[in-house]
Amino acid sequence: MTRDVSAPAGSPRVVILGGGFGGMAAARQLAGMAARITLVDRRNHHLFQPLLYQVATASLAAPSIAAPLRQILRRQRNLTVLLDEVTGIDLATRRVQCAHGMLDYDFLVVATGATHAYFGHDEWERYAPGLKTLDDAFLIRRRVLLAFEHAERETDPARRQAWLNFVVVGGGSTGVELAGTLIELARHTLSREFRRSDPRHASVRLIEAGSRLLTAYDPILSDKARRQLERLGVEVHTGVAVTDIDAGGVKLGEHWLPARTVLWAAGVAASPVGRLLGAALDRAGRVQVLPDLSLPGYPEVFVIGDLAGVAQSNGKPVPGVAPAAKQMGRHAGAMIRECLRGSGKRRPFSYRDDGSLATIGRLAAVAQFGRLKLSGFPAWFAWLLAHIYFLIGFRNRLVVMLDWAWAYWTHQRHARIVSGGDIPDDDVGRHQE
Amino acid sequence: MTRDVSAPAGSPRVVILGGGFGGMAAARQLAGMAARITLVDRRNHHLFQPLLYQVATASLAAPSIAAPLRQILRRQRNLTVLLDEVTGIDLATRRVQCAHGMLDYDFLVVATGATHAYFGHDEWERYAPGLKTLDDAFLIRRRVLLAFEHAERETDPARRQAWLNFVVVGGGSTGVELAGTLIELARHTLSREFRRSDPRHASVRLIEAGSRLLTAYDPILSDKARRQLERLGVEVHTGVAVTDIDAGGVKLGEHWLPARTVLWAAGVAASPVGRLLGAALDRAGRVQVLPDLSLPGYPEVFVIGDLAGVAQSNGKPVPGVAPAAKQMGRHAGAMIRECLRGSGKRRPFSYRDDGSLATIGRLAAVAQFGRLKLSGFPAWFAWLLAHIYFLIGFRNRLVVMLDWAWAYWTHQRHARIVSGGDIPDDDVGRHQE
Repeated sequence: MTRDVSAPAGSPRVVILGGGFGGMAAARQLAGMAARITLVDRRNHHLFQPLLYQVATASLAAPSIAAPLRQILRRQRNLTVLLDEVTGIDLATRRVQCAHGMLDYDFLVVATGATHAYFGHDEWERYAPGLKTLDDAFLIRRRVLLAFEHAERETDPARRQAWLNFVVVGGGSTGVELAGTLIELARHTLSREFRRSDPRHASVRLIEAGSRLLTAYDPILSDKARRQLERLGVEVHTGVAVTDIDAGGVKLGEHWLPARTVLWAAGVAASPVGRLLGAALDRAGRVQVLPDLSLPGYPEVFVIGDLAGVAQSNGKPVPGVAPAAKQMGRHAGAMIRECLRGSGKRRPFSYRDDGSLATIGRLAAVAQFGRLKLSGFPAWFAWLLAHIYFLIGFRNRLVVMLDWAWAYWTHQRHARIVSGGDIPDDDVGRHQE
Repeated sequence: MTRDVSAPAGSPRVVILGGGFGGMAAARQLAGMAARITLVDRRNHHLFQPLLYQVATASLAAPSIAAPLRQILRRQRNLTVLLDEVTGIDLATRRVQCAHGMLDYDFLVVATGATHAYFGHDEWERYAPGLKTLDDAFLIRRRVLLAFEHAERETDPARRQAWLNFVVVGGGSTGVELAGTLIELARHTLSREFRRSDPRHASVRLIEAGSRLLTAYDPILSDKARRQLERLGVEVHTGVAVTDIDAGGVKLGEHWLPARTVLWAAGVAASPVGRLLGAALDRAGRVQVLPDLSLPGYPEVFVIGDLAGVAQSNGKPVPGVAPAAKQMGRHAGAMIRECLRGSGKRRPFSYRDDGSLATIGRLAAVAQFGRLKLSGFPAWFAWLLAHIYFLIGFRNRLVVMLDWAWAYWTHQRHARIVSGGDIPDDDVGRHQE
């Protein structure tokens, strides 16, 4: 961040919607420019989403992976942060309507990200929460921790086992990370703390409709990930479709499995803000943008991150991952900077794949950097370093390292706090509302 | 904690209601005994309440001051933790009815603590939240942080100032600590992060109906606390009664003050579980117990902590503070131990006053240890050491020290995370429902 000065009145106005990886990168790219920037977000914090599953599984406290947007950007004097929600975008008059006011813009960056998708089964959401926000993580943490408490109170063996059956739907990196952490929670962290039930009897099933886990990776790594998960105790089912979910369990093809805790990591859809632009969307709701990331017909409007549908040079879509969002944010910022400087020169966005990392458990992970493929300890160590490095704030890096070292030696997870109410345990019927 | 063995079947059953300072102390006193102990709590964690105001003011993350009861007590093999809620107590048949089952007991320890009281104005609770649980702390944190966000969005000067007016009702230690931390938050932490409004224009008023702050302390220290608060910028009003509270502000005597954030630290009442005992209660709802802390007529039932009404040797009631709850827990545990060993000898409980500490802000505090009275830096340092020492868990001690050092040098508070929804800003009318 540059320590810079406020922009003079009358400078061009830049509005950035969304304070995730994309919006933050765009904002920082414009530090020091003579522009009046407003960054709007519904939440007061930037979230380090790659570690969100660790909040959901009680390994990290929320403030360790989230920092107030205002605090991160406080030194960028040409920028104002507003906590507000976008309700409309008028491209013709260049205005954004928010719940609490209106913003005129000369340049607009839309970076509102993605949310989970249930493929036409929105009724599954209440039984199988997804993981995108801190509130999602708290809900999952509450459900997971309370499931063990219900099992401890339950006297009927079949009902007890239903509380100890965990199902994770979706074999992408979030699903793999959740399943690996859940089995370690049950087998190690909680193993000696219950008297009537035994958390080691918990089962964790990872369900993937496709033929392999981690399709973004080389098949060799998919296979290694599967074997590492199975070694930890996770049951991996590929080529199995979830056909129904309710409060009592899931239907896998024709087979009904009683399971009181089902987590959704199967699909994302672009943020509904994309629809406000009135532009062409792809099947996942992503806005089809020009190669420079601008909206067709509106060179002053950029769409970036998970909301943008843009192809790589090899024809494949740019993946919905944090590094891609950051790169797009920097690109959009640079394009706006060119305009502010008067040249207005446009370049096509080009995605640079810096590699992929997914952690599976204690000392277990897979990593792919171009042709280099790692698994086991080297992949895990690369994952560790990368995540510490990209965390925002020295305090967070220090505390997260400390918490991980602590968890590593003691198997304890310090964030096992349930706030809010209990979950009902008499809600066992199917298709209840 | 003793690493001990499970109690044999047929051993006497001890039920402890509440996992606060009292219940935990009673449980630990019975470690290694041939007794089957069940500790019941509505929440899964023990909470270090003396630092709860730091979660409410974004200085500490919740997991730093809360630890799962199961984890703390995991090595006490004669003890089972149950997450449940007490709904009835049958003294004649020696049974506790919970929401999810029934528990028979040979000995019962009731340690369910206290909650906030609004002196017959329960309608004030929604406008002026109190601080007893983690959920209370999250609510207060959300309200305080969102108030500054509302002020930033608001264009009308009077309405903006109403969002920047904070009122703390009650000049006991919680009120003093909240007021001191709020003014530091506004004047230092947030001062450079807003562009349209200025958090330094925030006012914090501490309202006390009595003639002085911190009535549990010597009048000299009350006076010093007041002067330290005023030096930080808090407006202290003593001898002023709050006559009304709504969403728009508070009425102080006949004077109406617009203030969108009002916090309640004025009164506590004993937990409603006390009423289930059918015994005599005092005006604050505390159960009148015999000098050995047992319930009159039921020597196998003990009531301890904030729920117990018991006098010191000087005739004054034992105060509702953590050290008193711990001492009572140890006493009740010791009395049960005597019974288990066959002697059944009873001693009267005698409260040992180890002194009182209240922090006011950066380097400011008051402390009273018998005749020794401290204020300013020495009191603050004593407060610091005592609170680190009594925190549960090495990890928490380390992280809290780190967070305090961090906050001290940078004025930053790392837990400024708002989850959950916004608060309405059009809710300005009086007496709205």
